[in-house]
Amino acid sequence: MSESAASQRLAFVQNHLQVAACANQEEPRKKTPIESMNEEREKATFDVRELTYFLDGGEKYTKIREKFMMELERDPTFRMYDMYDVTKDEIRVRTMEKFRTIVHYVSAEPVPIFTMRMQTISLIDPGFWTRFGVHYGLFFGALRGSATSSQFSHWVSKGALALNGMVGCFAMTELGHGSNVAGLETTATFDEASDQFIIHTPSVTATKWWIGGAAHTATHTVCFAQLIVRGKRYGTKSFVVQLRDTRTYTLMPGINIGDIGKKMGRDGIDNGWIQFTNVRIPRTNMLMKHTKVSRAGEVKEPPMAQLTYGALIQGRVAMVVDSGNIGKKAVTIAGRYAAVRRQFSSSPHDVQETKLIDYAIHQYRLMPLLAQAYAFHFTGVETQKLYDDLMDKLESTQPGDASMQDTLDTLKETHATSAGLKAFCTWSTLNAIEACRQTLGGHGYSAYTGLATMYNDFAVHCTWEGDNTILTLQSGRYLISCYREALAGKTQPEGVDYLNHLDTLLTQGCAVKTNEEILNFDIIQQAWGVVTANVVKKAGDDFDASLKQGMNPETAYEECSQARLAAAKIHSFGYVFRRFAQAVKSAPEGLRPILAKVCFLYGLYSIEQNAGFFLQYRYFTPSQMDFVRAQVNVYCREVRQEYIPLIDAFNYSDYMINSPLGVYDGNVYEKYFDQVKRQNPVGGPHPYLPLIQSLLRRDIEDDEPLEDDDEDDE
Amino acid sequence: MSESAASQRLAFVQNHLQVAACANQEEPRKKTPIESMNEEREKATFDVRELTYFLDGGEKYTKIREKFMMELERDPTFRMYDMYDVTKDEIRVRTMEKFRTIVHYVSAEPVPIFTMRMQTISLIDPGFWTRFGVHYGLFFGALRGSATSSQFSHWVSKGALALNGMVGCFAMTELGHGSNVAGLETTATFDEASDQFIIHTPSVTATKWWIGGAAHTATHTVCFAQLIVRGKRYGTKSFVVQLRDTRTYTLMPGINIGDIGKKMGRDGIDNGWIQFTNVRIPRTNMLMKHTKVSRAGEVKEPPMAQLTYGALIQGRVAMVVDSGNIGKKAVTIAGRYAAVRRQFSSSPHDVQETKLIDYAIHQYRLMPLLAQAYAFHFTGVETQKLYDDLMDKLESTQPGDASMQDTLDTLKETHATSAGLKAFCTWSTLNAIEACRQTLGGHGYSAYTGLATMYNDFAVHCTWEGDNTILTLQSGRYLISCYREALAGKTQPEGVDYLNHLDTLLTQGCAVKTNEEILNFDIIQQAWGVVTANVVKKAGDDFDASLKQGMNPETAYEECSQARLAAAKIHSFGYVFRRFAQAVKSAPEGLRPILAKVCFLYGLYSIEQNAGFFLQYRYFTPSQMDFVRAQVNVYCREVRQEYIPLIDAFNYSDYMINSPLGVYDGNVYEKYFDQVKRQNPVGGPHPYLPLIQSLLRRDIEDDEPLEDDDEDDE
Repeated sequence: MSESAASQRLAFVQNHLQVAACANQEEPRKKTPIESMNEEREKATFDVRELTYFLDGGEKYTKIREKFMMELERDPTFRMYDMYDVTKDEIRVRTMEKFRTIVHYVSAEPVPIFTMRMQTISLIDPGFWTRFGVHYGLFFGALRGSATSSQFSHWVSKGALALNGMVGCFAMTELGHGSNVAGLETTATFDEASDQFIIHTPSVTATKWWIGGAAHTATHTVCFAQLIVRGKRYGTKSFVVQLRDTRTYTLMPGINIGDIGKKMGRDGIDNGWIQFTNVRIPRTNMLMKHTKVSRAGEVKEPPMAQLTYGALIQGRVAMVVDSGNIGKKAVTIAGRYAAVRRQFSSSPHDVQETKLIDYAIHQYRLMPLLAQAYAFHFTGVETQKLYDDLMDKLESTQPGDASMQDTLDTLKETHATSAGLKAFCTWSTLNAIEACRQTLGGHGYSAYTGLATMYNDFAVHCTWEGDNTILTLQSGRYLISCYREALAGKTQPEGVDYLNHLDTLLTQGCAVKTNEEILNFDIIQQAWGVVTANVVKKAGDDFDASLKQGMNPETAYEECSQARLAAAKIHSFGYVFRRFAQAVKSAPEGLRPILAKVCFLYGLYSIEQNAGFFLQYRYFTPSQMDFVRAQVNVYCREVRQEYIPLIDAFNYSDYMINSPLGVYDGNVYEKYFDQVKRQNPVGGPHPYLPLIQSLLRRDIEDDEPLEDDDEDDE
Repeated sequence: MSESAASQRLAFVQNHLQVAACANQEEPRKKTPIESMNEEREKATFDVRELTYFLDGGEKYTKIREKFMMELERDPTFRMYDMYDVTKDEIRVRTMEKFRTIVHYVSAEPVPIFTMRMQTISLIDPGFWTRFGVHYGLFFGALRGSATSSQFSHWVSKGALALNGMVGCFAMTELGHGSNVAGLETTATFDEASDQFIIHTPSVTATKWWIGGAAHTATHTVCFAQLIVRGKRYGTKSFVVQLRDTRTYTLMPGINIGDIGKKMGRDGIDNGWIQFTNVRIPRTNMLMKHTKVSRAGEVKEPPMAQLTYGALIQGRVAMVVDSGNIGKKAVTIAGRYAAVRRQFSSSPHDVQETKLIDYAIHQYRLMPLLAQAYAFHFTGVETQKLYDDLMDKLESTQPGDASMQDTLDTLKETHATSAGLKAFCTWSTLNAIEACRQTLGGHGYSAYTGLATMYNDFAVHCTWEGDNTILTLQSGRYLISCYREALAGKTQPEGVDYLNHLDTLLTQGCAVKTNEEILNFDIIQQAWGVVTANVVKKAGDDFDASLKQGMNPETAYEECSQARLAAAKIHSFGYVFRRFAQAVKSAPEGLRPILAKVCFLYGLYSIEQNAGFFLQYRYFTPSQMDFVRAQVNVYCREVRQEYIPLIDAFNYSDYMINSPLGVYDGNVYEKYFDQVKRQNPVGGPHPYLPLIQSLLRRDIEDDEPLEDDDEDDE
């Protein structure tokens, strides 16, 4: 036993002796953290395991996830206990070590199973998940989506799938250009004489920037550049460019690459910058599934550019799913800590301080976040289904098919829905992580609680693969267009169903006789329908007014940005509530009562947070709104009763949680202290000892003047 | 010239050649980032320098601040360019190096000037500011506030002021106990025989935790422990305990100390944990200004415990001031970038993409944050005055004086006001930093933009020196007590003046004939008064209702937590608006028009964000609220016109901003690229090269089975 462990053991023994001594004096005994946790588990009125199966989509999938968690925990390259202390270089080394392990599964497992494995990994090491995604999701995804079948076979034969002989990255964004892909500056000029493209970076702002995997590890990239043939520009297309020799790893001629360095989080990814200086590649390295350039320099453009959007949507759907999963992890940590942490006491007669979770305000801080995690979980499941359906349609539809219009409508809807939800869910979850961190009080500032790193890792979701503000505005634009279609008599899809009932909804108030009748799924759903319809109408009317003033549509959309943003946000709240309510209806009977409570809480809390709109459009009267506010507290208290079983149902192992304050058994202090001592051994190095010693022992104060012993000397 | 600099220069030359080429073709020339910035400065309708003087409190103070900025920039120990890349150990070494520099000034400069120096430092290195504050604010502050004059002289003679021979820390919080100081477990038992106290840590949860400076650097601590004399407990008192030999730095007998390790931010502070095992200290090491223990073991308790609260308030006031300052820094970075970054274009005829700041939505994201930074600046100035007045009163009032009640009222008011504002301003500023970071799009995720580190450093303000939620609830409790006093006819102080007009305010609506009349300081102030009065009344009524149900006051307060939180939040908005409006009135005439616009924006935006309450209490009608929403956009556009001059008036040098995206001249891309290359040299070390090479060259796939050449062998 080490000295520190011994001293801790001694302290514990003393603690227990003291408790025993108290017991002897017949004072009431205080509950240990473990006991404090156990009593929460006894409160469950539902079968926790059954809820886990329901969340996972069935017992079979729960077992697969548990298998993955065990495999990861026992894999030394996936050790996590020291992750909050590793340096940027160390974490990058780990990332490549993990690559080696995971490459084994990518070819051995069917895609849906491997996807579940990666989803499990995303929860514990989002940096690795992304680095891996750069190759398989972005680079390989671009090949699959934009290469002709013979091009695709060529790159697979070079090792793009097996990751044997090459590893790729995705060079889209530039230092001066992010969301506006059409505005990229890098050029790909066709040189007919040599049958080559010349890839070139014309300016500093054209430097490829943020390119994951470029700094040290990628051998090839899919580069986005302006296609120029015979002096004519054809817009941004993609080209495979080799960056490094695949054996020596020296840069290819004309390639200049650097590390973009330290980031807010996800330092396991070696993001880099790339400059191309007249780099020549074969013409056939242009990915030609859509636009083609022939040997003679003829450019053939595709009939339907929209069909290439599929890949963009995939990333957004993954982020909606990730929002639910990470939200669940954050709530697990904050929730378990709140069950054992005690502070102050509301009665002078209490034997022991009060649990955090027994304070009304703590319930108000945490229970809505628990409800949100559930809401986003079910939203993620549904969004994934929407995406899978779309992909099926896209694969089975050929240009010219009768079903083409239906497919395009589905594409438009899925594109807008996933854009809006990506923004809404990632923003809300980022806020939830920080809110959870703050509920830990001072301890939330320790890296070992995991929530600071979680925040820093998660934050990137708000700005990458479509900046959230831009996506929200796109979603608002979609809503305006649906609104205008609805006015013109076209029936709108389920996601914006409220637009099919504008006549009745716009002026509808809450027609209940008693306030208690508000506590009804249909009423809450109607409330969101009415308010969303009004907010969308407001955006649509603003847009129309600008058109009537003679603005072009782009300027008119720009003018109503604030209204578009509000419309998209309110729409998302209502949409997510509906997904949750549907999930409750489809749940096994034994789970419905508890899930209904959680769902009510989500609905009522969201209404309270947006009270201004519900009062503005007079759906609720001020007194009904007071009732809603009061009911938020009531439901916080209700959900609090079984909140630990609700958290347990997420079924994340302690390894996955990787936070001593969120351990299953509740023994938080001992485990937190253990981790701190393991990572910072007592008596460890003291790198600045001489500095302090010399600071404290300044024998001659250096600003003390010499005595001026001969003042009149000169 | 280095290779990378040369290649960058080349790229630049190419860029300029290209621009020149375009010019030759008579295409309209695009504006450079520097030109884009310059044109913003030309828009100023006010004297920027005059505004700086006004913000700083006069030209004299601006010059002092500029002197400090220059001194820091030229001081090698305060070099900042590499701060986003240093490790925990390195930053701690730097912190101690800075100590050496700053100790020189602490004795040479008058306190108000030195405070200004430290305020300047807090903006560029909050970790060092805190570490220094641990000794001078907390340790030395505790001596000054709780030691008798002879005890104080003793510790000064030992070097506590000059930091020569000792350096201190402040051991209050424990692993299991934070905000509830009365619940601390560490004991100080008087041993009459030896005339000593025995300081002891009875359990793991009693381990002193988060103690800044304890891990490696403090020689002494002020330890908070339960005073036990002759078996009787007297509550938490403070004791000076030596931790380390001041020459060898070895731990004193009975002391066990460790590093608590990695934190979310401020890693320059060596926070540690301390366990005391029967550590004996002289009786006279107890700080006895208030409670005294005599040689014979007689305990004399002070007549007025409240008078010891002063020190707590100081930290909170500093955080209100810091909120304004850090908010200004965040807005400087995001604001300058928005003036030069271009993205998309709202018209197909534009020569160049549109500046971010010319998008309505970007104005809506940034301008309210600029307004908030101004609002918090003026709030900080006023809160500091309130605090200084209180200190004057406390120092001039003796127990028994006729003015004692007035002093206690001021103490109560300042305590509640600073608590509420600390929570409100730090929460709002933390959100503002993240919002600013997100306006940078993808680049916001780079460490070099400074905003990620700013977020991580600032976040601690929300939980330390009074957790924000607890402080907000305290502020709500104060408001309820003022409300009850007002009902009983007692006139309330200026901060809660609205409670003196409950009769008229509670049911008042906005009595304007046209919507335009809303744009009036008195109306906006009245709006906040009406809504705050109602929200406070709601909390007070909830409290009363609980009392009438027979609850004790503590339980009744607990029951109305949600209403208390809402009351304190709304009160803070109104309070801050009033501080801002008063500052506008006191501004030089030439500055009033622009400041009035910024102030209106703050008022209108805050109303929009809290629309639910303004509609709930029917101050505004839904159509008036629509007008307010529309005016937020109008004022965003108005303030946007001169927003760069408004930012320039903050007068932070590039060194202070320490973000290439926030540089004064607007040359963001070149400076960002320079910083990335300086910190991550091209061709630098590649720590995981062999790992990748072996990954990509797996000659034998290890999961390929051996051929089973003799199947029937057995």
